[in-house]
Amino acid sequence: MKVGVYGLGRFGFFWSELLARKFDVSGYNRSSLAVKPSNVTLVEEDIILQSDVLFLCVSISSMEQVLKNITGRIKPGCIVFDTCSVKIYPINIMKSLLGEKVEIIGLHPMFGPDSGKDGVEDLPLVFIPVRNKLDAAEKWKKIFTDYGMRVIEITADLHDRDAAFTQGITHFIGRVLNELQLKESNISTMGYKSLLTIVEQTCNDPFQLFMDLQHYNPYTHDMRHKLNGSLKKTMAMLADADPVRDL
Amino acid sequence: MKVGVYGLGRFGFFWSELLARKFDVSGYNRSSLAVKPSNVTLVEEDIILQSDVLFLCVSISSMEQVLKNITGRIKPGCIVFDTCSVKIYPINIMKSLLGEKVEIIGLHPMFGPDSGKDGVEDLPLVFIPVRNKLDAAEKWKKIFTDYGMRVIEITADLHDRDAAFTQGITHFIGRVLNELQLKESNISTMGYKSLLTIVEQTCNDPFQLFMDLQHYNPYTHDMRHKLNGSLKKTMAMLADADPVRDL
Repeated sequence: MKVGVYGLGRFGFFWSELLARKFDVSGYNRSSLAVKPSNVTLVEEDIILQSDVLFLCVSISSMEQVLKNITGRIKPGCIVFDTCSVKIYPINIMKSLLGEKVEIIGLHPMFGPDSGKDGVEDLPLVFIPVRNKLDAAEKWKKIFTDYGMRVIEITADLHDRDAAFTQGITHFIGRVLNELQLKESNISTMGYKSLLTIVEQTCNDPFQLFMDLQHYNPYTHDMRHKLNGSLKKTMAMLADADPVRDL
Repeated sequence: MKVGVYGLGRFGFFWSELLARKFDVSGYNRSSLAVKPSNVTLVEEDIILQSDVLFLCVSISSMEQVLKNITGRIKPGCIVFDTCSVKIYPINIMKSLLGEKVEIIGLHPMFGPDSGKDGVEDLPLVFIPVRNKLDAAEKWKKIFTDYGMRVIEITADLHDRDAAFTQGITHFIGRVLNELQLKESNISTMGYKSLLTIVEQTCNDPFQLFMDLQHYNPYTHDMRHKLNGSLKKTMAMLADADPVRDL
């Protein structure tokens, strides 16, 4: 079985190395790489599209263009997985742009190079069969389970609702705090150290991922609106209760 | 040496038990306690004021009233430590309200029952000699160092500046997110789990501590103003870049 990873950015690089522990993995990236993922064979686009299983690891915002570009050249019978951090949007465009001859499964590994650096044991992987043979789904669920991942089958809508208020809010807080250029201090509390780690790790991810998470998940607008409301409420509460001391 | 802890709220309770590992500790609380700290003798207010060393573990906002109430009754020669999470304000009122017959040292253990539950090894303790004999300061720095704490001598101003953007911002984010009633999810990322822990731990502390941290540290207003600005900037940046897709 030939496994291909299309896109070797921060996540694709990590994901291809993880898959290469168990499979013969090829990888394709549109631009050349300074460092290549271990045990992964770099190939041209036409070759990667001949894989039996293809993991798309491109940015959410480039999915439409990538799919339009590759749809006619993917090997018939190929199982195509996306790995986007939102699910409604990429699944809809995969359904509309990929022909009936390929199978489609939506995937969101809820981890990456930072959170998965010490292993993927017990980390959640959202798995959404879209248009596929039953045995393909069962086979791949078993593969991910064997890696130790916690495979979770939910709808794309439920994923996006939940992710907006979990992953989405974390990245949003991380980026907002990053603007403040917070620094380590010798009087840091444990809580503050955790906060700095969140800022660092969310900002390790590409800026495009942050933007796409906020734009392509239909529930993040509501999250940001509620967060803004909560900030205003807390500010107003503090102002009302201010003893207005001359400190 | 008789060590007294005045105020057995969430922090005083924890602090008195910690001191009781090495000293004969008495504790006083204005209201009766459902549970008493281990190895601490509960006494009346007049008795606690006869201690050789007195730790004030009352809320920042009640410091002035408490000091006015006890100042004439503290044993001459007593070393009085405050333990407030801000330092300029309580040190100023201690200097003005406590007579010359007592010594004064400002203290801020940058930990509490949550962050110190697995031990206080390497946790920072801010130590500010205010009006004291040199040997009293040296003796107590050694005691805290022997506990494993990292004793840090800085000015009250530097403490408050730093704490506004470390402890202050952490509590503020914790309270703002708490308003959203975020929940654990089976697809939580590691970053989101850390965020939930921050919310939980900051909200374990008394609401009064949050309010006082924000009101009695002269630098928290600037922190909140900058945080609000960063939120607005991030919101505007997202709005500008929105592809306005019909998702």
